[in-house]
Amino acid sequence: MDDIRIPFNRPCVVDTSLGFVERALASPIHAGDGTFTNQCQTIIEGELGVRKALLTTSCTHALEMAALLLDIRPGDEVIVPSFTFVSTANAFALRGARIVFADIRQDTLNIDETRVESLFSDRTRAIVPVHYAGVGCEMDTLTALAAQRGLRQRGVAVVEDNAHGLFGKWCGRPLGSFGVLATQSFHESKNFSCGEGGALIVNDPSLLDRAEIVREKGTNRSRFFRGQVDKYSWLELGSSYLLSDVLAALLASQLEQRVQIQARRHAIWKRYESELNEWAVVQGVRLPFVPSEADHTAHMFYLRMPSLDVRQRFIGHLRSRGILAVFHYLPLHLSDVGRGMGGRPGDCPVAEEVSDRIVRLPLYAALTEDEQDEVIAGVRAFRA
Amino acid sequence: MDDIRIPFNRPCVVDTSLGFVERALASPIHAGDGTFTNQCQTIIEGELGVRKALLTTSCTHALEMAALLLDIRPGDEVIVPSFTFVSTANAFALRGARIVFADIRQDTLNIDETRVESLFSDRTRAIVPVHYAGVGCEMDTLTALAAQRGLRQRGVAVVEDNAHGLFGKWCGRPLGSFGVLATQSFHESKNFSCGEGGALIVNDPSLLDRAEIVREKGTNRSRFFRGQVDKYSWLELGSSYLLSDVLAALLASQLEQRVQIQARRHAIWKRYESELNEWAVVQGVRLPFVPSEADHTAHMFYLRMPSLDVRQRFIGHLRSRGILAVFHYLPLHLSDVGRGMGGRPGDCPVAEEVSDRIVRLPLYAALTEDEQDEVIAGVRAFRA
Repeated sequence: MDDIRIPFNRPCVVDTSLGFVERALASPIHAGDGTFTNQCQTIIEGELGVRKALLTTSCTHALEMAALLLDIRPGDEVIVPSFTFVSTANAFALRGARIVFADIRQDTLNIDETRVESLFSDRTRAIVPVHYAGVGCEMDTLTALAAQRGLRQRGVAVVEDNAHGLFGKWCGRPLGSFGVLATQSFHESKNFSCGEGGALIVNDPSLLDRAEIVREKGTNRSRFFRGQVDKYSWLELGSSYLLSDVLAALLASQLEQRVQIQARRHAIWKRYESELNEWAVVQGVRLPFVPSEADHTAHMFYLRMPSLDVRQRFIGHLRSRGILAVFHYLPLHLSDVGRGMGGRPGDCPVAEEVSDRIVRLPLYAALTEDEQDEVIAGVRAFRA
Repeated sequence: MDDIRIPFNRPCVVDTSLGFVERALASPIHAGDGTFTNQCQTIIEGELGVRKALLTTSCTHALEMAALLLDIRPGDEVIVPSFTFVSTANAFALRGARIVFADIRQDTLNIDETRVESLFSDRTRAIVPVHYAGVGCEMDTLTALAAQRGLRQRGVAVVEDNAHGLFGKWCGRPLGSFGVLATQSFHESKNFSCGEGGALIVNDPSLLDRAEIVREKGTNRSRFFRGQVDKYSWLELGSSYLLSDVLAALLASQLEQRVQIQARRHAIWKRYESELNEWAVVQGVRLPFVPSEADHTAHMFYLRMPSLDVRQRFIGHLRSRGILAVFHYLPLHLSDVGRGMGGRPGDCPVAEEVSDRIVRLPLYAALTEDEQDEVIAGVRAFRA
């Protein structure tokens, strides 16, 4: 990788990040649930208008918390788009669920809500829409479908995998506020990063007490530290999902500057769109589609190439210019685990096609104008 | 807690910690498996003489990795001391195992190896000894017991929960090097801390490939990044267990100064022992016992009081002097989950007694001599 001058990603850091981390190191709490954890949670709760946000060690672990809170058991079925990160499915498979893979829409690459009803069975317990690239799924349709089957309590819950979508909206309402539960990612690849981290959003107040227990190794330690019980005990299955307050400090420094960070990302995104539109039309390349209902998060700028072969040549072309562009998810229904759950080629044709053809361009707040000039020039010099 | 002048713990930080974290923030990798992760793993592997150490998000998660790697399934049984942290048991219960609780020895408070054989059944898959306070368990006996039943592959595996015991030894051999797998903790309460963190030690080379897969969400992403495969796929159940390299930097700064940190802790420990011995004899209080086979880690200095009532008065007495001393584990077999698995009062009498009577004194590298003087004076002023 020594020849790469413009990497695909640079983790977000702001001018105050080191100072925040220094304060965390000087504080008596380096484990979870310290001052900076509270600060992050308060910002997220305020911006999303949600009842409770709990920082976690990753979005993967927030999804695993969701599976525990919904009491997912062997034999249960969970509907997940095939075109997503492994954890969206793995978190529920860990509890014994069979994953039922849904295809995605041709326009937004989100779960195709028109196909979800045909995937329901008596064992369906949850739908996990992923707001791909921070563009909202058709949440009205999805929540209505779930509600028809009865929300929660052995009904069908909607869990939003909002790894890409912090501060995005759908019909003016914040992503992460629609599902019974929602999950966020602060992995280094995300708009706001602490290296490895995440959050669980709890929208159903009846799950809040158990969320604290599950996050604290299945114990009521949170209540103990608040003086509400005089000792704590192992009450149910859980795990250790608290984010170190040192990482929460790094995250808090960025969340405080969320307006500036998002403005910079949107400027880069829009410039890609306007500068590459003509080239894309001529070359038969598709740019991202954002429906009018969506306020997206400028998390990702992707191109959909005419074929796998052209995509691979394109990646090589940019790489020869010192620019790293990368593909994305492989369809989960065709992975070893997915095939073991019954996935077959042709089950999710859009996911299969998009997986072969998509490529993502460098996009991060620290990308300079000169660097973006280079990327744009590199892309325009390519003939499909 | 405003009246506490000498806290029970201060998380370890050294003079180079901030500089290490600054370098991590300036590096292109904030997620897992960066430069500092490698540095930590290399130090641990070298000191313990083990094949592979993998940093994880916590000791809890290293134990969960062990349960996945051993393919623990519903109906399997795992033998765990009742007197331990919830995660020792919870990690295996998450995979459906029934936990069989063993009592502890009166001297070291470690699992009573003479009781283990009677707990075996045809379903026993693992024994999880915990090196309490960094004093080694009777590993020869335990590994021989497991070997009689056939190691691995639906046999009985020994997994060392070495949360307290990094750099400790038993009969001259490093703790963490005895089991098929072993786990470490870098929680803020431990000798070496990154707030929340841990490590899995893989001593059985046949588990190494799968350990990388399980740690990377069940995918062969590690091989992909090493260029050994051209794309990565979901191969089996896993989770996201990589520690942020920002936290690994904090840890690396301390591991580099492991000799000094351990020397300071041992000095504090020995001073408690010599200064409190006479008082303890008079008051009927027991101090920690370290057998001659053990090089312990000075992780903890505990007192065993004559009764629960005296212990509670003692904690109040120190607290009135601004000193925080704390109790420790509640017996797991008497927790809600433990009772659900068949635990009953009287099953583990030593664990039940010790749980009521034990209290731990402040012990950390940053405890000053003056502060330790105060603690010692406070203890000596107490009459049982």
